[in-house]
Amino acid sequence: MQMREFELPDPQPGALLVDITAAGVCGSDVHIWAGKDPRTRLPMILGHEGVGRIRMLNGPKRDLFGEELKVGDKIVWHRGVTCGRCVYCAKRREPSLCLYRKVYGTMYSCDQWPYLTGNYAEVLYVHPQSEIMKLPEDCDDGLIAAATCSGATAAHTIELLDITMGSTVVIIGPGPLGLYTAAYCFERGAAQVFIFGTAADIPRLQLAESFGCIPVNVDEVGPDERRQAVLDATHGLGADYVIECTGVKACAQEAVDLACRGGSVAIPGIAVPVGEMSILPFEQIAVRNLRLQGVWVSDARHMYEAVTLTLSGKYPLQEMITHRFPLSQANEALQAIATRQAIKAIIEPQAK
Amino acid sequence: MQMREFELPDPQPGALLVDITAAGVCGSDVHIWAGKDPRTRLPMILGHEGVGRIRMLNGPKRDLFGEELKVGDKIVWHRGVTCGRCVYCAKRREPSLCLYRKVYGTMYSCDQWPYLTGNYAEVLYVHPQSEIMKLPEDCDDGLIAAATCSGATAAHTIELLDITMGSTVVIIGPGPLGLYTAAYCFERGAAQVFIFGTAADIPRLQLAESFGCIPVNVDEVGPDERRQAVLDATHGLGADYVIECTGVKACAQEAVDLACRGGSVAIPGIAVPVGEMSILPFEQIAVRNLRLQGVWVSDARHMYEAVTLTLSGKYPLQEMITHRFPLSQANEALQAIATRQAIKAIIEPQAK
Amino acid sequence: MQMREFELPDPQPGALLVDITAAGVCGSDVHIWAGKDPRTRLPMILGHEGVGRIRMLNGPKRDLFGEELKVGDKIVWHRGVTCGRCVYCAKRREPSLCLYRKVYGTMYSCDQWPYLTGNYAEVLYVHPQSEIMKLPEDCDDGLIAAATCSGATAAHTIELLDITMGSTVVIIGPGPLGLYTAAYCFERGAAQVFIFGTAADIPRLQLAESFGCIPVNVDEVGPDERRQAVLDATHGLGADYVIECTGVKACAQEAVDLACRGGSVAIPGIAVPVGEMSILPFEQIAVRNLRLQGVWVSDARHMYEAVTLTLSGKYPLQEMITHRFPLSQANEALQAIATRQAIKAIIEPQAK
Amino acid sequence: MQMREFELPDPQPGALLVDITAAGVCGSDVHIWAGKDPRTRLPMILGHEGVGRIRMLNGPKRDLFGEELKVGDKIVWHRGVTCGRCVYCAKRREPSLCLYRKVYGTMYSCDQWPYLTGNYAEVLYVHPQSEIMKLPEDCDDGLIAAATCSGATAAHTIELLDITMGSTVVIIGPGPLGLYTAAYCFERGAAQVFIFGTAADIPRLQLAESFGCIPVNVDEVGPDERRQAVLDATHGLGADYVIECTGVKACAQEAVDLACRGGSVAIPGIAVPVGEMSILPFEQIAVRNLRLQGVWVSDARHMYEAVTLTLSGKYPLQEMITHRFPLSQANEALQAIATRQAIKAIIEPQAK
Repeated sequence: MQMREFELPDPQPGALLVDITAAGVCGSDVHIWAGKDPRTRLPMILGHEGVGRIRMLNGPKRDLFGEELKVGDKIVWHRGVTCGRCVYCAKRREPSLCLYRKVYGTMYSCDQWPYLTGNYAEVLYVHPQSEIMKLPEDCDDGLIAAATCSGATAAHTIELLDITMGSTVVIIGPGPLGLYTAAYCFERGAAQVFIFGTAADIPRLQLAESFGCIPVNVDEVGPDERRQAVLDATHGLGADYVIECTGVKACAQEAVDLACRGGSVAIPGIAVPVGEMSILPFEQIAVRNLRLQGVWVSDARHMYEAVTLTLSGKYPLQEMITHRFPLSQANEALQAIATRQAIKAIIEPQAK
Repeated sequence: MQMREFELPDPQPGALLVDITAAGVCGSDVHIWAGKDPRTRLPMILGHEGVGRIRMLNGPKRDLFGEELKVGDKIVWHRGVTCGRCVYCAKRREPSLCLYRKVYGTMYSCDQWPYLTGNYAEVLYVHPQSEIMKLPEDCDDGLIAAATCSGATAAHTIELLDITMGSTVVIIGPGPLGLYTAAYCFERGAAQVFIFGTAADIPRLQLAESFGCIPVNVDEVGPDERRQAVLDATHGLGADYVIECTGVKACAQEAVDLACRGGSVAIPGIAVPVGEMSILPFEQIAVRNLRLQGVWVSDARHMYEAVTLTLSGKYPLQEMITHRFPLSQANEALQAIATRQAIKAIIEPQAK
Repeated sequence: MQMREFELPDPQPGALLVDITAAGVCGSDVHIWAGKDPRTRLPMILGHEGVGRIRMLNGPKRDLFGEELKVGDKIVWHRGVTCGRCVYCAKRREPSLCLYRKVYGTMYSCDQWPYLTGNYAEVLYVHPQSEIMKLPEDCDDGLIAAATCSGATAAHTIELLDITMGSTVVIIGPGPLGLYTAAYCFERGAAQVFIFGTAADIPRLQLAESFGCIPVNVDEVGPDERRQAVLDATHGLGADYVIECTGVKACAQEAVDLACRGGSVAIPGIAVPVGEMSILPFEQIAVRNLRLQGVWVSDARHMYEAVTLTLSGKYPLQEMITHRFPLSQANEALQAIATRQAIKAIIEPQAK
Repeated sequence: MQMREFELPDPQPGALLVDITAAGVCGSDVHIWAGKDPRTRLPMILGHEGVGRIRMLNGPKRDLFGEELKVGDKIVWHRGVTCGRCVYCAKRREPSLCLYRKVYGTMYSCDQWPYLTGNYAEVLYVHPQSEIMKLPEDCDDGLIAAATCSGATAAHTIELLDITMGSTVVIIGPGPLGLYTAAYCFERGAAQVFIFGTAADIPRLQLAESFGCIPVNVDEVGPDERRQAVLDATHGLGADYVIECTGVKACAQEAVDLACRGGSVAIPGIAVPVGEMSILPFEQIAVRNLRLQGVWVSDARHMYEAVTLTLSGKYPLQEMITHRFPLSQANEALQAIATRQAIKAIIEPQAK
């Protein structure tokens, strides 16, 4: 990545130019950076998680709630740009699967108008169809940026699983996705939330514990032992829901074995190819009446839920933000995530 | 209403000009015609139910399923024009309640660009955000036009009530809304569908009977007697669902009394003010764990469901179309509905 | 009420004798006491909310989770005795509406075997079909007794409304039902929970505020002003859910006006006849796509949810228990509720 | 299997003795007969699908709808005997997963009281907790017996998948499970139902076609070709639901590949161990937001739905019953199923 200057495009009616105040660095940015994401169209500006202030607008513009927007307002927008009118948007009401979905900082090239299509930049062009929420002046922009991706995907997971009150959940992986998922499980009334991580994850496990989770260090507690811990906590039945948030195939295997009969397993962490996985369709799925659910990205509802939860301050999510960088150090920001030094890193383009 | 000539507007990118082949005449058109709908903005072109052929398009355009559209294609479009990005569209996923919803032939004035905003016309301007379905060459355009309004509202009702298999339903009112609702109840596996109408409704009741309904002529079968018939058919419990499709307040009262404990009552027929209605919150609602559900208009999913059901040919819905008129006789078409001579009347602007 | 001695009945297979440690005094006990509940069959032992220790069992017996029960175990049981095999229990899966439901302390006479059928007693006969949960030694038995009625009915309300994350709720009435409902709203991720009470309710409003609610003293904040407060907090839309927990008809009227389009209003507080209520079916229900939902009692799932929430200690629900009485002062306990001196009163039959 | 005489047990209160008029022969009976089902406790009386007439009852007894039963009534009962009070019955409301579920003709030994525990017999002992439906005099008892197993499991599948109106379904396997599933898909408003079978299944495929299905002979139409047929019928998207009803692992693999993004795959046909199956968690599940759902047996609601659908006569389900045998030829009946000569075989113990 290198710094490059662009001329500012003129916004179409309903579009905005936004001064980016915070851009989140996501694990999938590292994949793109490493050239492993087939959706990438070079040259490009990275960054699908962003918050900013309106610099220019063309005509009257309203946010999700009908509030009129004006220059200087701090806003957040949905990272996916959807058509709103295809079978997935309008008939199935699953805009996360829109036939024409594109994502800022992922599927746009900066060679094509309107160029400023990623959040690792001083200015972003926000398309007319992007859903927008106005933000309070006193929020942490970097944390809200983080909410729009892992927070929203966690919300999508929770919606698909339809978590019931008083249930037991196991979350595998205490990164931003797992931590947001844990917070939501409590928001839906889960009674017990186990979270599994490695010795390297201890700060993350401690953060999860502060939410109310039961942390399990898998480097200390072996597979049989941790399975037994879940059984002991559930009268021998297993967890109602198991959510794989690491992207590691072996964890998805373990997830299936931790669920109770009638339970559900979701795999939002599987975000890149991991090869084949073996299941026993009778013993693991059929006789256990089990549900295995894929989760792909999220939509504007999920962004709303993630931003609202984050703004509520009910969970110390801000402790996830361990690193902040100016735009000039975007490579270092990616490095911090790639090496897992940071739980979450933020780029602040307006920082001096 | 009188004939008036307009110059054709140039479609914006994504908009269409359509040659109307059929426009449905709806009960609410009669209300507007009579000056009773406060949303009316005169002068205007009536008609929110339409089917037509593409006359002109500006740029590539796709239907709900991603099929590319071209001049000459026969299409149907959603009668409501929604923003796709507000709290109702994007967060609650209830675009029928969109903050900015407008309806062709109802809430647009023909004094303002793009003028051609109602279906009682030779040409309609279809906005870029309208959801579109391509139609087969051999369908009955008038019947599809009817599907987009009463058929879609019926589908919305069914979605809200979540009809279960093996259930008993009472539908009050065998007009197009009631007839579509009856068809859907069978489509959701209802075991018994009563339909109530007056002596004047006998042809409608006979049509409903041909779907599998149990018709009840309320001019012959009094309130106690018909309530007893429902109880006898339900082991004394009452109907699982009761759906008021007449718009008459007394029918809504009766609906509440026909439902079983735990049952649901919907009132999609109440489409204009009818004054006050008295309920007993303890005896009729609380102790019976009853649900009373308002139903307001519909969205593109419902249009899809209504059009798909209609095209399936499973129910002889075409028998609802009792009257067809050329555009020059639009006043006569409204009269046929106002006097209840017609079950459903269609205006065919291309007819010579 | 007066003290009376009974011989202990022999439990049938699967039945239990339980030494009552705590019996909750409910508003509906006051109704029965006052002779206003038509279900009453005199002579009777009052008390449908209870916790106790197993005194005698006949044959092996397991709790909800398959844990074997033994003499001395502290347990709680579902207050409703349901058949498990009728259309409501087995087909509709709404055992709260069971065709044969009876309730301890409400619908049994102590003149008929097994006599000990109410919780205002030293010993209760628990029927074989009662669902049972084992309790930890260190819980507050009186608080758990309270959970089984108002806590469970609140859980039923929440299940019927299907509260969504990030929503706004208004609860009218800060008694035990309203307070439990408020706690559940947070458990389901509501973002804002208003709670309305009178000047006499100030301690209750303060308790609700400690949960996170926005308290509104209706003796200080008039109808228009509090409606405006709800609109201001919801971008002018109104509350997603409004829950009437007072049993006062005027509050149900107000509830309807506070809901947003597409919103839901539940009336679990309406537990005795209150006469007629007037609604505008078009303006208040139809055009607003509103749902009005009756809520009648609760089932074993709801008891589980209420007991689990209470044991979690997440909300200071124990502060509701303002009064405790020995069995000999049962009349005083009822008086404390009738005069609204107590938020919740508990009778402790084992107290010396 | 051999004929053996038993003394009739005295029914407990609420239990019944029933003269079996029809017992269905199920594929899993063949498994038990072949000694392949680990739940089997020899000696035993086979047969979990039954219909009969009441021979003796002990005390008043009511059916699902509260109708009083008497000697001579023709009835059907739920094949699973559930406790009604455990976490699955009472909290999760999934009695099909009851902790203590037993099945007539499968998990009872005839060495233990009440001996008469299978339907391949002249008399069955029906436990007090069995859910019961009264049948009309003129129904086909054998067909109703069939409904209680494959019909009910199909209903469970449909409930779990929550089939939407206008959807496209692929069913793999046109046996009784697949045929009932097809009928239900139409009952829930599916627009297109493909059904796959082999050349040997042609009579079954023809029966499915008479319901409205699109039959596919997989011996003539290869994997790529039939996948293309599904894509062509769905605008290139794939099927909304794919339901595996053969029990063949390769079919489950194929099922996953036929579903659209956001679609669901259920595997009710997998009823015995089939070894390992390989899936690609990213490509097949995650990125497609796919749901893979196990389905295990069924409950009384599903029996109700299956019996109600069957009695409606809407689908020529009686054509599934290709073979009928007297009790003395029970071995031949099993043979007819084992060799797949019969679609469905019935034993009629009262036949002379």
